[in-house]
Amino acid sequence: MAYPLHVARDERGVTPQSEDFSAWYNEIVFRAELVDRGPVRGTMVMRPYGYRIWELLQADIDRRIKETGHVNAYFPLLIPESYMRREAEHVEGFSPELAIVTHAGGKELEEPLIIRPTSETVIGEMMAKWISSHRDLPMLLNQWANVVRWELRPRMFLRTTEFLWQEGHTAHADEADAMSETLLALTMYGQVARDVAAMPVIEGEKTPGERFAGARRTFTVEGMMRDGRALQSGTSHYMGENFARAFGIQYSADNGELRFCHTTSWGMSARMVGGVIMTHGDDKGLVLPPLLAPYQVVIVPIGRGDQAEQMLQPASELAERLRRAGIRTHVDARQQVSPGFKFNDWEMRGVPIRLELGPRDLAQGSALMSLRIGAGKTPVSLDSAPARLMFELTAFQGMLLQRATDFRDAHTVTVNSWEEFTEAVKTGWAIAFHCGQQDCEDDIKAATSATPRCIPTVGEPEEGLCVRCNAPSGYGKRIVFGRSY
Amino acid sequence: MAYPLHVARDERGVTPQSEDFSAWYNEIVFRAELVDRGPVRGTMVMRPYGYRIWELLQADIDRRIKETGHVNAYFPLLIPESYMRREAEHVEGFSPELAIVTHAGGKELEEPLIIRPTSETVIGEMMAKWISSHRDLPMLLNQWANVVRWELRPRMFLRTTEFLWQEGHTAHADEADAMSETLLALTMYGQVARDVAAMPVIEGEKTPGERFAGARRTFTVEGMMRDGRALQSGTSHYMGENFARAFGIQYSADNGELRFCHTTSWGMSARMVGGVIMTHGDDKGLVLPPLLAPYQVVIVPIGRGDQAEQMLQPASELAERLRRAGIRTHVDARQQVSPGFKFNDWEMRGVPIRLELGPRDLAQGSALMSLRIGAGKTPVSLDSAPARLMFELTAFQGMLLQRATDFRDAHTVTVNSWEEFTEAVKTGWAIAFHCGQQDCEDDIKAATSATPRCIPTVGEPEEGLCVRCNAPSGYGKRIVFGRSY
Repeated sequence: MAYPLHVARDERGVTPQSEDFSAWYNEIVFRAELVDRGPVRGTMVMRPYGYRIWELLQADIDRRIKETGHVNAYFPLLIPESYMRREAEHVEGFSPELAIVTHAGGKELEEPLIIRPTSETVIGEMMAKWISSHRDLPMLLNQWANVVRWELRPRMFLRTTEFLWQEGHTAHADEADAMSETLLALTMYGQVARDVAAMPVIEGEKTPGERFAGARRTFTVEGMMRDGRALQSGTSHYMGENFARAFGIQYSADNGELRFCHTTSWGMSARMVGGVIMTHGDDKGLVLPPLLAPYQVVIVPIGRGDQAEQMLQPASELAERLRRAGIRTHVDARQQVSPGFKFNDWEMRGVPIRLELGPRDLAQGSALMSLRIGAGKTPVSLDSAPARLMFELTAFQGMLLQRATDFRDAHTVTVNSWEEFTEAVKTGWAIAFHCGQQDCEDDIKAATSATPRCIPTVGEPEEGLCVRCNAPSGYGKRIVFGRSY
Repeated sequence: MAYPLHVARDERGVTPQSEDFSAWYNEIVFRAELVDRGPVRGTMVMRPYGYRIWELLQADIDRRIKETGHVNAYFPLLIPESYMRREAEHVEGFSPELAIVTHAGGKELEEPLIIRPTSETVIGEMMAKWISSHRDLPMLLNQWANVVRWELRPRMFLRTTEFLWQEGHTAHADEADAMSETLLALTMYGQVARDVAAMPVIEGEKTPGERFAGARRTFTVEGMMRDGRALQSGTSHYMGENFARAFGIQYSADNGELRFCHTTSWGMSARMVGGVIMTHGDDKGLVLPPLLAPYQVVIVPIGRGDQAEQMLQPASELAERLRRAGIRTHVDARQQVSPGFKFNDWEMRGVPIRLELGPRDLAQGSALMSLRIGAGKTPVSLDSAPARLMFELTAFQGMLLQRATDFRDAHTVTVNSWEEFTEAVKTGWAIAFHCGQQDCEDDIKAATSATPRCIPTVGEPEEGLCVRCNAPSGYGKRIVFGRSY
C-alpha cells in the first residue's frame, strides 16, 4: 500500500508555531497531504495519508466499543424534519446548523428532510419500536457515520460541514445503569486519547451552559494543544428520560409496570486527527504517534546514482522483515529527489523513525536511525532491527505522551485571583473556583475568551470563592478554564 | 458481543419460497432482525445482526482492495449541482434519482447541492488537482461511503434510497492500464462473491444498453437467486477519457506531452447481503455462509429447570474454547423459551452449526451437532470440538457454494430457439445468441421481462443467429439472459 504523496512544490518553510499557530496548522494539513478543500464551502476531502490516521484510530475505537458489549448498526442519513422538533432543547440547539433536502426524485417533498446532525431522534424512534421488556435492556448500539452541521467558521478536521464519527446510543432501565454507561464511554475516550493518540486529556463534566442540546449531563475529555488552547476531544451524554419521553422508549419492568428508559449517547470524531496534529506537531511539521502513523518507519537508501540503486534491494529486504514484525514500513525509492529532500519530507509528514541505508552502513551490517524527535543518528544492527525498532516505537509513543503531559502541566496554573486567572488563560489553562452562575461564565468569556472546559472527574473536594465574582464555589472543587477550539 | 435479538412474537410460519419468493424475502429480513424500515420512504435501518453480515463482508473486501495497492480516502457527501452536468451521459442517467439540498444554516443556498448518488464527479475534480505528472499514475483510490438514489420501488438491501458501498476510483496513463484495473476489480468481485459469500457469480460485460451512465465499458458479476432471477452484485467501469475530459484530469507524459487520463470506477454494496439471503435461504429462514455468519456456532443447553442451568457452565467453557480457535460462538442461555423454540429461532437466523449440550452428552464428553443444511444430529467430542468445528464450517462453506452452483447450472439452458428461450427465462437463465441491437433487446424485455445480464468473460467464440430476430450474432459468443432484480 503506497500513499499517493507528491514531491512538495512549495519550497518555502512552514510558518513557525510561535508566530501564528493557526497559520502553521493550516499549512501543515495541506502540505502533509492530509486533506484538501471540498467544492462546497466548509467541506473537506480526507486524502489517503490523512484518512489512514483516522482509519487506524477508528479500528482501535471500534475494538474497544465491541469489547465493552456494544454492537454496530446503521441508521438512515435523512430524517423527517418533524423528528427534530420532538425534543425542545435538541431542536433549539441544532436548528441553525441543519442542511435540508426539499426536492428528491424530481419532485418537491411533502415534508422536508434534514441530513442528520446527530442521530438521537431516528435512533430514539427505533428504540421505541425495539424495546418492550426489561429483558431488552440495556440496548447498547453504536454507529459509524457521517453527519452534517452547517459551519460558518470551518477549520480542517476541527469544524467541517460534514464530519465522520462514531455515535454510541444506549438505553437502560434506570439512571444508575445509564450513568455508569455514560462514564464507561468517558473512560474509554480517555484511554483512546492517552494510549493511542498520546494526548493527556482531562476527563470531567461540562457546566450546564456547555451541555449537549437535550442532555441532562454532559461529560468530556479535553486535550491541551501546543498553543495552550483546549480541544474538546470526545463527549458522553446522560439524557435522563428526555429522549425516552419524546420518542416513547418504554419497557415493562419485572413487576409489569411500564417505565421510561434512561438513554445515553457519546461520540468521538475525526476531529481527533486535528488534536493529534496540534498536540505533537512542531515547526518541522507533523509528529505522529507510532500507533497512528501510516508509516512508522521510512527507509531512505543513501548514495549517488548507481550506489543508491544498489541499496534498493537490501532496503526492500529490511522493509519486508520489519513488515513481518508488524511495523508499517516504507522504502523511499524516489530517484528524482536527494536524500536531504527526503529527510525533510518525512519529517514534515511526521514519520516517527527514519532509517538511512548506505553502502558503508550495509558493510557494517547496520542502518542509521533518526527519531522524529531527538538529536543525532544511532546505528542499528540489521540483524536485530525488528525487535529494536519495535522497542524504539514503543518508547517514542511513551515519550510523546510524557512530553505532552509536561507541556500541559507547564501551562496549567492553579489560580486564586482574577489577575492570575487572566494571565494563565493567555497561554494555557487556569484551575479556579467558580460560582456556577451562567452570567458569571458569560462575563469571564467576554473578558478573556476563556470558558469552563470541565469540572474534573478527579481531584479532592475543596471549597472557595469564585475567581471572578467572589460568590461561593458552585461545584465543590476547582474547575478548568481555558480558551478552546 | 451479543446481538439484541428478540423472541419472535409471530408464531406463524414463513411464506414458502415456492409460493411467493418476494413475500418470503420480505418476511425473512424482518423476522431475522436484519433490518427495519427507516422513517423516510425507501430508507432502511441495518439492525445489529444484519449490519454484522455487512461488516464481515466489508472487512474482507477492504483487505483485498488494500492488498491490490489501493488506498482509502474520503470525499464529501454534498456536491454542487453543476458538477453533475459536466458529463452529459452521467447527468442524464442520474438526474431522476437525485436528492437536493436547497437550504442550509438557516438560509436558501445560492447553488443547490446534491447528495452524492456516486462520486465520479467530485473525485474527478480532485484528481484533476492532484495529478500532474506520469509519476502520479496510476492513482488508485477507494472510499467507503453512503450514497443516495431516490427509489420508487424500494426493496430491503437490493434497492434503498440510501445505501452503503465502496466505490473505487482510479486514474491511469492509458487505456491498457485502465482496462487491466477494470478487470482486476471484476476479478476481485468474482472472488469475494464465490470465496466469501458462496455465490457462484458469472463475470461478464454489460451490453451497451445496460452500461453505467458515462462509462465506455461496464463489467458485472451476476448471481442467480433461488427464484431464478439474476442479481447484479458488483460492477466495474472503464470510463475512457469521458470524466478526464469533463474534469480536466491530465498528466504530462515522459516526453512532456499533456494527455488525458483514462479512469475507472467500481463498486460493491450492501446489496450483497440481499444476494446472500436469496442465494442460500430456504423455507426455514436464512442460511448464512460461515464466513459471513455473525454467530457461526450456537450452543443450546438442554434440560429442564435446574438441569439446563447446570449446563450453562460447561456450555460457556466450550464456547470460550471455540472462540479462542477463532469461531464466533454464542450460548443461548434464555430461560423463558424451550430448546425446541431455540432450534427454530437459530434456524430462522441462519446459524451454520447448532450444538446441543445436555447432561447425558456431557457425561459422554460430547455435544450433539446439527448443520443448518443436512439431516440428523452427530455427536462431537468435546475434546476435539474446536478442530472438528473448524473443519465442519469450512466444509459447510464449500457445500453452500457447490449447492448454489448446482442450482444455477440446473436453471441455466443453452437455447437455440425462441420457444426454448421463453421457457428458460421463466425459471432461470438462457444462454443465447443475440444480434446486439437495442430495439431487439427492448423487444425481448417486453415479451419476457428478461434482459441481457452479461456477455460472459469465459466461453469460446461462437457464431450464430439472434434467438429473437435471426440477425447474425453481435458479440461473437452466446450471452446470458434472465429476469433480474
